[in-house]
Amino acid sequence: MGIVTGAEYLKRMACLKSNVWMDGKRIERPLTDVEPFQSVFKAKGKLYDMVHDERYASTLQGKDQKINFSYDIPRTKEDLVKRRKATQLWANETLGVLGRSPDYVNTMIAIMAGAKKFFAEADPQFGENIDAIYKRAKEVDLTFTHTFVNPSISRKPFYPDGQGKDQPIATKIIEETEEGIIVDGARLLATQGGMTDELLVIPSAAFIDSDYLFGCTIPSDTKGLTFINRPPYKKESTFDSPLSSQFEEGDAIVVFDHVLVPWNRVFLYRNEWLMNDLFMKTGMESFLLYQAVNRQIVKTEWLLGIAQALVTMLDIERHQHIQGKLGEMIIALEAMVGFVYSSEAQAEVNDFGIMVPKLETLKACASYYQTTYPRLIEIIQLLGASHFIAAPSEKDFASSIAPYLERFIKGEYVSAYDKFQLIQLARDMTMTEFGTRQLLYERYFYGDPVRVLSSLNGLYSKKKEELQMRISDFFEREK
Amino acid sequence: MGIVTGAEYLKRMACLKSNVWMDGKRIERPLTDVEPFQSVFKAKGKLYDMVHDERYASTLQGKDQKINFSYDIPRTKEDLVKRRKATQLWANETLGVLGRSPDYVNTMIAIMAGAKKFFAEADPQFGENIDAIYKRAKEVDLTFTHTFVNPSISRKPFYPDGQGKDQPIATKIIEETEEGIIVDGARLLATQGGMTDELLVIPSAAFIDSDYLFGCTIPSDTKGLTFINRPPYKKESTFDSPLSSQFEEGDAIVVFDHVLVPWNRVFLYRNEWLMNDLFMKTGMESFLLYQAVNRQIVKTEWLLGIAQALVTMLDIERHQHIQGKLGEMIIALEAMVGFVYSSEAQAEVNDFGIMVPKLETLKACASYYQTTYPRLIEIIQLLGASHFIAAPSEKDFASSIAPYLERFIKGEYVSAYDKFQLIQLARDMTMTEFGTRQLLYERYFYGDPVRVLSSLNGLYSKKKEELQMRISDFFEREK
Amino acid sequence: MGIVTGAEYLKRMACLKSNVWMDGKRIERPLTDVEPFQSVFKAKGKLYDMVHDERYASTLQGKDQKINFSYDIPRTKEDLVKRRKATQLWANETLGVLGRSPDYVNTMIAIMAGAKKFFAEADPQFGENIDAIYKRAKEVDLTFTHTFVNPSISRKPFYPDGQGKDQPIATKIIEETEEGIIVDGARLLATQGGMTDELLVIPSAAFIDSDYLFGCTIPSDTKGLTFINRPPYKKESTFDSPLSSQFEEGDAIVVFDHVLVPWNRVFLYRNEWLMNDLFMKTGMESFLLYQAVNRQIVKTEWLLGIAQALVTMLDIERHQHIQGKLGEMIIALEAMVGFVYSSEAQAEVNDFGIMVPKLETLKACASYYQTTYPRLIEIIQLLGASHFIAAPSEKDFASSIAPYLERFIKGEYVSAYDKFQLIQLARDMTMTEFGTRQLLYERYFYGDPVRVLSSLNGLYSKKKEELQMRISDFFEREK
Amino acid sequence: MGIVTGAEYLKRMACLKSNVWMDGKRIERPLTDVEPFQSVFKAKGKLYDMVHDERYASTLQGKDQKINFSYDIPRTKEDLVKRRKATQLWANETLGVLGRSPDYVNTMIAIMAGAKKFFAEADPQFGENIDAIYKRAKEVDLTFTHTFVNPSISRKPFYPDGQGKDQPIATKIIEETEEGIIVDGARLLATQGGMTDELLVIPSAAFIDSDYLFGCTIPSDTKGLTFINRPPYKKESTFDSPLSSQFEEGDAIVVFDHVLVPWNRVFLYRNEWLMNDLFMKTGMESFLLYQAVNRQIVKTEWLLGIAQALVTMLDIERHQHIQGKLGEMIIALEAMVGFVYSSEAQAEVNDFGIMVPKLETLKACASYYQTTYPRLIEIIQLLGASHFIAAPSEKDFASSIAPYLERFIKGEYVSAYDKFQLIQLARDMTMTEFGTRQLLYERYFYGDPVRVLSSLNGLYSKKKEELQMRISDFFEREK
Repeated sequence: MGIVTGAEYLKRMACLKSNVWMDGKRIERPLTDVEPFQSVFKAKGKLYDMVHDERYASTLQGKDQKINFSYDIPRTKEDLVKRRKATQLWANETLGVLGRSPDYVNTMIAIMAGAKKFFAEADPQFGENIDAIYKRAKEVDLTFTHTFVNPSISRKPFYPDGQGKDQPIATKIIEETEEGIIVDGARLLATQGGMTDELLVIPSAAFIDSDYLFGCTIPSDTKGLTFINRPPYKKESTFDSPLSSQFEEGDAIVVFDHVLVPWNRVFLYRNEWLMNDLFMKTGMESFLLYQAVNRQIVKTEWLLGIAQALVTMLDIERHQHIQGKLGEMIIALEAMVGFVYSSEAQAEVNDFGIMVPKLETLKACASYYQTTYPRLIEIIQLLGASHFIAAPSEKDFASSIAPYLERFIKGEYVSAYDKFQLIQLARDMTMTEFGTRQLLYERYFYGDPVRVLSSLNGLYSKKKEELQMRISDFFEREK
Repeated sequence: MGIVTGAEYLKRMACLKSNVWMDGKRIERPLTDVEPFQSVFKAKGKLYDMVHDERYASTLQGKDQKINFSYDIPRTKEDLVKRRKATQLWANETLGVLGRSPDYVNTMIAIMAGAKKFFAEADPQFGENIDAIYKRAKEVDLTFTHTFVNPSISRKPFYPDGQGKDQPIATKIIEETEEGIIVDGARLLATQGGMTDELLVIPSAAFIDSDYLFGCTIPSDTKGLTFINRPPYKKESTFDSPLSSQFEEGDAIVVFDHVLVPWNRVFLYRNEWLMNDLFMKTGMESFLLYQAVNRQIVKTEWLLGIAQALVTMLDIERHQHIQGKLGEMIIALEAMVGFVYSSEAQAEVNDFGIMVPKLETLKACASYYQTTYPRLIEIIQLLGASHFIAAPSEKDFASSIAPYLERFIKGEYVSAYDKFQLIQLARDMTMTEFGTRQLLYERYFYGDPVRVLSSLNGLYSKKKEELQMRISDFFEREK
Repeated sequence: MGIVTGAEYLKRMACLKSNVWMDGKRIERPLTDVEPFQSVFKAKGKLYDMVHDERYASTLQGKDQKINFSYDIPRTKEDLVKRRKATQLWANETLGVLGRSPDYVNTMIAIMAGAKKFFAEADPQFGENIDAIYKRAKEVDLTFTHTFVNPSISRKPFYPDGQGKDQPIATKIIEETEEGIIVDGARLLATQGGMTDELLVIPSAAFIDSDYLFGCTIPSDTKGLTFINRPPYKKESTFDSPLSSQFEEGDAIVVFDHVLVPWNRVFLYRNEWLMNDLFMKTGMESFLLYQAVNRQIVKTEWLLGIAQALVTMLDIERHQHIQGKLGEMIIALEAMVGFVYSSEAQAEVNDFGIMVPKLETLKACASYYQTTYPRLIEIIQLLGASHFIAAPSEKDFASSIAPYLERFIKGEYVSAYDKFQLIQLARDMTMTEFGTRQLLYERYFYGDPVRVLSSLNGLYSKKKEELQMRISDFFEREK
Repeated sequence: MGIVTGAEYLKRMACLKSNVWMDGKRIERPLTDVEPFQSVFKAKGKLYDMVHDERYASTLQGKDQKINFSYDIPRTKEDLVKRRKATQLWANETLGVLGRSPDYVNTMIAIMAGAKKFFAEADPQFGENIDAIYKRAKEVDLTFTHTFVNPSISRKPFYPDGQGKDQPIATKIIEETEEGIIVDGARLLATQGGMTDELLVIPSAAFIDSDYLFGCTIPSDTKGLTFINRPPYKKESTFDSPLSSQFEEGDAIVVFDHVLVPWNRVFLYRNEWLMNDLFMKTGMESFLLYQAVNRQIVKTEWLLGIAQALVTMLDIERHQHIQGKLGEMIIALEAMVGFVYSSEAQAEVNDFGIMVPKLETLKACASYYQTTYPRLIEIIQLLGASHFIAAPSEKDFASSIAPYLERFIKGEYVSAYDKFQLIQLARDMTMTEFGTRQLLYERYFYGDPVRVLSSLNGLYSKKKEELQMRISDFFEREK
C-alpha cells in the first residue's frame, strides 16, 4: 500500500486503545468519537486525502515510490525543493497552526533511517532496528508523535529521583529482560499524545546518567502508557472559533508505568556519544527545523492575509502607521522565505549521502521567529482592536437580535455576519486560549529563546573566527 | 442612608429589569442569578461591604459624610491622597482587573456636579439637573456604567446614517417632546452594560452635528434599551480560572430603540462648546485618568507579585535575565507611582474649586501604560513558559490520576496542587480570553495608542514652547 | 583598454578640475593632494588594482570582456552570483563602509544601457545616448557619482521657487539651445561630489512640473558646477581613526549655475511616464538595492567580527547576555544573506533580457537593515562600553607616558597597544562622526524608513491579494 | 567667605599644578589657558557667578549660611525641594550636559559629613576627618572630582597584580608611615581629572582585600599624582560645535605613583563593613542619584526643546509619526519628573537626621534613563535626518559661497544660517564625539545597565515579598 486515504487513516485510529485522561476522566470511547480529538483526526484525514488528489499527488507522494513525501530521504537540492513545497502545501491546508502534521515526526524517522550507519556504529542491531522501524512506517504510512522533554521541577533540566529508586520522575531504564527494557517515569508535552500509531522516544539532551538514555518507538496503546491530556479549549462553533474547533491538537504528559520496550524497538541505548551526535551528525536537527520553518512561512502568509483582510474591511490602509505595520509583516515573511532559500542554496551532502540544508541558517531562522511571531500577533491585535472585545456569536446571528447587529455593526461594504466571520478568525488566531497556546508554541519552538540564541552563537564559532581573522589581517596591512 | 451594604446592593440589583441578551438569548431571570453576571455582582458586593468594615471605613467613606468616597469632591491635596488610597484599596480587592469598580463612573458624576456652574452657563436647568443626579446618586449609593463610543463602521468615528432617517446608527436625537427627548440608535462597548442602576451617556468626542449631542443618565431598565452582551468567557472552577470565574464584567452594545430621556435627566443638549470643554474644564478627564492609573498601579503590583511568586517557585532568580525581567517590572511600577505623585504635587484648584491632579502627567501615564502593560504580560508568559500549556485542572486533581500529578509535576518545595494554583492564576491573567481582553482593555484604555500619543503631544504645546524659548535664549547668549 | 589600474585612475583624477569648496575655501590644488579626498582616492585606487590581481581577476573582470564587472549586464542567474561575489569582494576591501565604490553608479549606467529600448521608446535619440554613455564608460572605466535629491526646505519634497524665475532652488531646465539644455539650481547630497569623472543626474521621484525632469551625465568639471563639501571629519592617525583616516567619502551640495548639458548627454527629458517607470521597469531599482545589500552583508560581517574580537579580548563570552547579543548579530547577518539568496532564486528576466533579482525581497531587505543596523551599532557600543571613553591615542603610546598605559590598561592576553588598536577600530565604526554618519547613511539608505516601509507595502499589494483570497476560500470550504 | 565668584574660582584654578597629560604631552601651562580645559573652567565659572546673582541667590546659596547649596545637609522635605531646584537651575545653565557640575561631589562630601557618626563608629578620628574636610570645603567653596573605578582588565572588577608587589595595578595601600599612608597604582575615569581643587577617593565596591580599602580626599596637585587625559574632541567654533566647544569635561586615568595620603585626610581605612554600608546607610547613594536624575530631567527638557524646534523649523508636526515621537519624549520627561516627586514624597529621615529621598525610586529612575536616553537621541537623529550630514560650517557662512547656502538650504521661515545654527546644536548633542560620549555616559551612569537592573531587583526584595504575600492571602480567601 504505502499511502493511506483519510478514511483508512480514521478507521485505523478508531481502533487505537491508548489510555488517555482528560479533565479527571479516562476517555472510554474511541478518541475519534470524542472532542477535541475528533476534529483534529478529521483535519489530519484531509491531509491524507490530499496525497491521493491528482492536483497534489506529484508533490505529496514520494519521488519514485508510492509513499508519503516525508518518508523520502533527500539526496539532491531538487529533493529539498520538492520537500519544501510538500510541507508548505500540507501546512497551508491547516493555516500553519497544526504543529504536528504527520510529516514532522515522519521526517525524523526517515532521516535517522537514512543515517542507519550512524546507529550501526554503536551496535549493528541499532542500525537494523531503525531501518525496520522506517520500512514499516513508510509501508503502512504510520503516524507518530514524540516526546523528548523530561519533567521539569524548578526548571532544572530534570529531577533526581526524590522518592527512592521505586519512583523515578523522569523516565528511566529500571530493568533489562530478555524481551526488552523496562522503563518507568514520565515525559512532558507530547502534543497529540495518544492520538498516533506510535510514540517516538528520544533521549532528552540533558541527562544525568545512562539510565535515562534510550531511543525507541512503541505503539501508543502499549501497556503501562498513560497520556494525561490538558483540559480542552475546544469550542463548537466554526463561526465563533474557526481554528479552535478544528485544529486543537492537545498536549499531554506521558506516564510510563513499568513499560516494556522490546529490543527490536530500541535504536539507542546507554550510548552517550551517540546521543551527543544524534541531532547534528545525522542531519535530523536541520530537517526538524526545515519542516518547522516552512510551516511557519505558511502561517506568516495567513497572518499577513488576515491582517490585510482586516485592513481592507476596516478601510484603514490610508494611515501611514497601518502601512508600516503591514510592512513589518512583509519583512518578516520575506526574511523567513530568505532563510529557507539560503539554507537550500548552502545545503551539503552529509556522511550518509543525505542533502542537508544549512543548520546555522535554519537555527537563526527559528530564533528570529521566536521573537518575531509575538509581534505579528500584536499587530493583528492592534488592527482588530475593540472589534475583538464584543464580537457576537453564531447564536447571536441566528437569534431575533440579528437585525440589530446588521444595523449597528455591519461593515462599510460587508454584512455584520461576514465582518465578524473574519473578526472571529483573527480573534481565534490571537486572542483565544488556542491563540495564546500558539503564541507560546512558536515562542518556545526549539527551546527557551534565551538558550536558543546562546546555542546559535555557539554553532557559529567557526565563522566568527574567520571574521576575526579579517580584522587581524586589516591591522597587518595597515602596518 | 448613603452607603449600602453588599446585601442591600445585591438585593437592589436583583430587582433590575434590564433587557440583556447574550449568545442569542434574552436573559429572563434576574442577572444576579445568572453567570457570568452573578459573580461580578458578588465581587462588587464585597467592595460595598468593605465600606462598612471598620478597618477601611475611614478611607472608603466620605470625608465628612456617610457617602462613598468616590462621591466626595476633592478640594485639597489631602483629599486627593485620601481618594488615591481608597481607589487603590478597592482595586486591590479585585486584583486591579475590575475595570469598572463603582468609583469609576461615580467620580465622573461627582466632578460634573462639582462643576455644575459650567453646565449652568449653558442652561441653568442643566446645572440643576446634574446636581440632582449627583445628590440622588450619593444618597442612595447608585451604580452606573457609561457609554461614549459610537458604532464604528470602517473605523471612522461614526457613521452617517445609511438607511434613512428612520434608522440612525449612532444614537441621535430624533424628537423633542414635552416629557423629554427621544433618541434612537446604538452605542458601543458599555462594560457591565445592563448591570448597573443607571447608564451615563456622554456624547462622543467625534460628532457630526448637534443631533448626536446630548448627555444624560437613565435607569438601565428604561423602556427601549437593549444590551447585547458579548458571549461569556466565564469558567466555573476558581482553581482553573481564579479571575475569569469572579471578575468577568461583560461588554455590551447598547441599543436605544426610541428611548425617551426625561428633561430632568439631561445636562448637556446640542451645545458644542459645552461638549468641547467638558472633559478638561470640569477636571473630569483628570479624575477619570486618576482613578484608572491608580487601579493600574495596583494591577502592576499584582503582576509583579505573580512574577516574583513564579520566579520563587521555579527557583530561577539566580539567572541574570530573570532579574532583568523583574527589574523591568519594578521600573514600570515605580514609574506609574511616580506619575501619580507628580500629578498630586502639581495639582491645582480649577474654576469650580476642585483640586485637579495635573492632566498632562496623567495622560503621559496612561499613554505609558498602553505600551508597558503588554510587556508586563509578556514577561509573565516568559516566566511561566511551558507550564502554561499543560496545566491540569481541578478535576484532574480530584481524580484517581492525581498521584501521577503529585509525583511528576510537583514543585521543588510545593505540591503539584499548590504549584498549579499559582500557574493557573498567572495563566488567567495572561493566557485566557479573560487575560487577552485585559490586554486589549489596557492597551486601548483612553483610546487608540497612536492617537493618545498625538493628543498628549497637543496637550503639551505650551510647555514645549517654553522649552523652545530656552534654545533661542541660548543662541542669544552665545552672541 | 577597459580596466584601469590604481595608478592610471589616480593620474586621471589628478587632472580633474572640479570646483570644490570646503569649510569656506575653494580647493585649489588637485583633490588627490588634499585630505580628506586624497585618502579615499587612494582607497579606490586599491580597488582598481584588485581587478588586475590574478587572485581576483576572474571575479572582478567582465564575463567575456576586459571590463569592470559592474559594467556587465546580467543575463543569467550565474551572472548574478558572479556579480554578488564581486560586489562583496570590493566591499570587503573597504570593510563595507565605502558607500560609493565605483560599482554603485556603474551598475546604474549598465542597467539603463541594457534597457536602452525603454528610453528609445520615448525618443530614439535617448536610447542612443544612454548606450553611448555606457560604451564610453566601460571602455575607459569611468567613475561616477550621482545626485537625485532636491533641496529640502521644510522637508517638502522640494521647494517652489521663492525668489522668482531667476533663482530656482531645485535644479530645473531654464532654457533650451541648439547645443543642449541650460539648467540652474541645486541638488543635495552628492557623496564623493566632484571626485568622479562624471556626475549622473537622475530626476527626483518627486517633481512638480516637467521643468525639473531630465536625466543626463556630465563631467564633474563642467562649467558652472560647484560642489560644496561638508566640513571634513578626517583624522590623521590610522591608529586613532582607522576608518575615518581612509574612507571618508565626503558629501556635497551640487550647485548648477546655468550649466549647459549637451543634447547627446541627455537620456530623459520632460517625459513623466519614462520617469515613473524608470526604476522598476529597467530593473535599475533592483540592481541598486542588490549592490547595496551585498555591501551591507559584508559590513555586517565586519561588525560581527569586531564584536567577537571585543568579546574575546575582554573575555566576556561566558555571560549569557553577551552570547545573546552576538546571537542577535548572527541572525541579522543570516537574514541579510537569506534575502539575497531569495532574490536570486526568484530572479526573472525582464523585458530587456536582463536577469533581475526580485525587487520585493530586496526592498524588504533594505527596510530591514534600516532598523537593524542601529541595533548592531548599539551592541558594539554596549560591548566596548567605557573603553570607548578614555582610549589613548597613538601619540600617547609614543610618549614617555606609555609605560603607565601598558601597566594599567593592557588586556589580559594582549598589550595595551593592541587592545586599543581594536578599541579604536570599534570606536571609529560606532562613536566618531564617521561612525554616526554611517549610522544615518544606513538608516536612510533608500529613503526615510517610514516611507520605505509604506512603499514596500504598496509593492506587495498583488501578493497580499492572493493571501486574502485564501481566506475567502477558507470560509467557503467551511460552509 | 563661603561662596566664590567665577573670577575667584578661575584665579584659584590657574594656580593648580596638577600633572596632566594629553595626547602624549604634558600640559605645561596652567590648564585654564589650554583647551579643552579652558572652556569648561569658564563654564563652571559662570555657575559660580550665578550663586551671587540676586535672581538665583535664594536658591543657590545655603538655607541659613552663605555657602553653596550643595554643602547644605537636607533635614526636611522642603530642603529637598530647594536642592532639586538648585540642581536643576545649575544644570539648565549647561543644558544638562555637564556631568560633573560642582554640586555632584560636593553633595557626597556634605552627606558623608552629615553622617560623621557613621565613620566615627569605626574610628573617632574618621568622624573628625570627614567633618574637617567638609568644613574646609564649604568655607572655601572647594571643587572636587572623584574616582572609584579600578582598572578593568578583561572586565573583571579589578586585576590581581600581575607584575609583583612592586607594580600594583589597582591603587592599593603599600605602606603606612607616621605621616600617612602610601598608595600606588591607578584608578579609571576621573572626569575633570586634575581640574579640581581636590580628588575624592572612594573604594571601589569590588575589592579583593583590605589593601585596596581606603577613602580620602587629596589635592589634585599632590606629588605622585598623574592624570592621563583622553584625546580632546574640542572644536573651536561655537556655531559648528555649540556644546563641544564649551562643555567638554575630559576623562582621565589617574595614576598614584607612591602617593602619600596624610592621616587627617583619611576617613575610611581597611573597614569592610564601613565600605559595605557606606552608600546606603549614609544616604549618599540616594543623593548621588538625586543630583544625577535632576540633571537628567533638565537635559531631557533640552532634548525635547531641540526636538520641537527642529519639528517647527522643518514644519513636520502634521505627521502623526512625528507627533508620536514627540509624545514619546514627553512621556520620558514626565516619567523622570514623576520619579523625583515620588522619591521626595516618600523620603525619610535616616539615622543621622538626614532627609533621604527614596532610594528604590531613584534607582528605578536611573535604570529607566539608561535605556530611555538612547531612544531620545535616536528620535532627534530621526528628526534631523539628512540635515545632519551636510551641515555647513561657520567658515562656509563667512565665505563667498554663503549666498548659495542662503539660496539653496534656507528654511521656510528662517535663514540658512539660523537653520543650521539649530541643526548644529542638535548634531552636537547626538552625532559628534561629544554627543556619543554623552550617550555612553548616560547609558552607563551608575554602572552597566544589566547589573543596575539586577541590583534594582535585589533592592526591591522586601516590597516583592509583601506583594507575594497578597497572593497567598488571595488563595486563602478563596478557600
